[in-house]
Amino acid sequence: MTGEEALLARVAAALGEVPRGAEVELGIGDDCAVLRSPGSRLVWTVDAQVDEVHFRREWLSYEDIGYRAFASAASDVVAMGATPIAALAALTLDPRTTEADVEALARGQRDASREASAPVIGGNLSRGATLSVTTTVLGRAVAPVRREGARPGDLVWATGPLGLVRLGLLSYMLEIDGENVEPARQCFRRPRVRYDLAGWLGGATAAIDVSDGLALDASRLAARSGVRLVLDAEALVACGGRALEVAARRLGERPLEAALRGGEDYVVLACAPSALVGVDGALPGGLVAIGRVQAGVGVAVVVDGREREVEAAGYDHLRGA
Amino acid sequence: MTGEEALLARVAAALGEVPRGAEVELGIGDDCAVLRSPGSRLVWTVDAQVDEVHFRREWLSYEDIGYRAFASAASDVVAMGATPIAALAALTLDPRTTEADVEALARGQRDASREASAPVIGGNLSRGATLSVTTTVLGRAVAPVRREGARPGDLVWATGPLGLVRLGLLSYMLEIDGENVEPARQCFRRPRVRYDLAGWLGGATAAIDVSDGLALDASRLAARSGVRLVLDAEALVACGGRALEVAARRLGERPLEAALRGGEDYVVLACAPSALVGVDGALPGGLVAIGRVQAGVGVAVVVDGREREVEAAGYDHLRGA
Repeated sequence: MTGEEALLARVAAALGEVPRGAEVELGIGDDCAVLRSPGSRLVWTVDAQVDEVHFRREWLSYEDIGYRAFASAASDVVAMGATPIAALAALTLDPRTTEADVEALARGQRDASREASAPVIGGNLSRGATLSVTTTVLGRAVAPVRREGARPGDLVWATGPLGLVRLGLLSYMLEIDGENVEPARQCFRRPRVRYDLAGWLGGATAAIDVSDGLALDASRLAARSGVRLVLDAEALVACGGRALEVAARRLGERPLEAALRGGEDYVVLACAPSALVGVDGALPGGLVAIGRVQAGVGVAVVVDGREREVEAAGYDHLRGA
Repeated sequence: MTGEEALLARVAAALGEVPRGAEVELGIGDDCAVLRSPGSRLVWTVDAQVDEVHFRREWLSYEDIGYRAFASAASDVVAMGATPIAALAALTLDPRTTEADVEALARGQRDASREASAPVIGGNLSRGATLSVTTTVLGRAVAPVRREGARPGDLVWATGPLGLVRLGLLSYMLEIDGENVEPARQCFRRPRVRYDLAGWLGGATAAIDVSDGLALDASRLAARSGVRLVLDAEALVACGGRALEVAARRLGERPLEAALRGGEDYVVLACAPSALVGVDGALPGGLVAIGRVQAGVGVAVVVDGREREVEAAGYDHLRGA
């Protein structure tokens, strides 16, 4: 359990039991809260992007900050197999942020919200010593996909590149730029959320938004589902394609480690019966099978035919480690 | 138009037109966003409480901070004549905030959420240079009450004391304590939201959460409804009762000015046909009739039988003025 998880557990305990009322179906402990509504479910999440913690203004334009803030929250909704409906954004503006900057930030939110077909329909503005953007998104799903539910025999899927965001971040921190790292930087600035996969994900048995690194988030899904995930090293690296390979080489990282230890990928890790592939004979583009579900515990990665246990460690937003 | 409103208008323009889809009924510009759901409406708001902007830790315990953060957001929901369903809270924790502090904060949220019968069902934790609590609340209403809709002939109502929070804040800033200011301080630390009035408010023609001061918020409602509000000075002061009087005297403020210029009252200003009074023959406790709606523009206050225009100025969270 990370420091963040331990603290969350204490917070959950302090908040007390959630009454199982008519409308609240799922509370703390998954990617989104779920509210019952006739015919379908509302899923609901909140995510904060804080200056000097999640980004720096030397790296991102205000448009990028707005885009990234929206995408990071909406990704949680997609990870439930849900379609975003709308968002609210609470901005805390530090003295350095001008009105033109706020407008630019809103344009970035607009761009991201249009891709999601989920408008920003309200919010809040406040002054403060630190710039931050807190986004809450509501989405709709017939049957929200949780972290529990994966079954032995399922395949494990990733909806996008793993580790590229970490390499983009690293390239900013090390001040190494150039064409080898630009795709990774682009991924950091404007994470691409696969809204088009919400329907497909609705057929998954379990899913999680990879925001704290695959190693940690996969182990969370495995623990919650009571299964073991066996991932394939080659497939993991293949998700990132050539962009991962060249950026990793330029930055002196191993692509597999970047894929496993990355953070803020905003990619969905999903488990689904193999029968789900090729309903209609077609697998949505960009989905990569990265492993399989077995009976057991923990997460392993197969490298050159040998299983290696993966430690449940990753990006802890509270420790920044 | 305040700096905050001007900036909000720019943000709204930058965000672009909200598509009038099946689910989004009302976006930016009222106390909450509204989402359609069969049989009733969801209302949805977000509010931030930022250290050194909305409170100081010398004044509030962490329990108070949590309580206040929840109440300030939930008050927007009640101002729509809606009943809170649930909330999410995003905490940004500065290095000074310990895990025990976070737990205490969550206990305060729990206490406030129990009064609202609306649990905190999720959220987000992040590090950052500044402590803040951003709360998003969903509520349910058959017909949400907006800022527009007040009609000449309506009575104007307040659901609680006006100006007491301002005096509480002032007493902290001036470091004047004692029994004369303690009720005002209590109001600042733990604003009381009238969840029990959501049903009654559902019959109002228009309503607004008084969070930026009565003068400013009343003028907003008047402008949006295309009417004039004529308030009664004696009734305004009467809302605060003896607590307002003695605190104002101790702090050298005029009670009427405190009531008009206060901020963060988290009291609802509602317009309702006089017929709404005494349905069942009973008026809910704590409601005070503070004026009437006329044809015309602006806001006036009647002092000793003479109408005085009220300037649309108040607490601007961006200017801190």
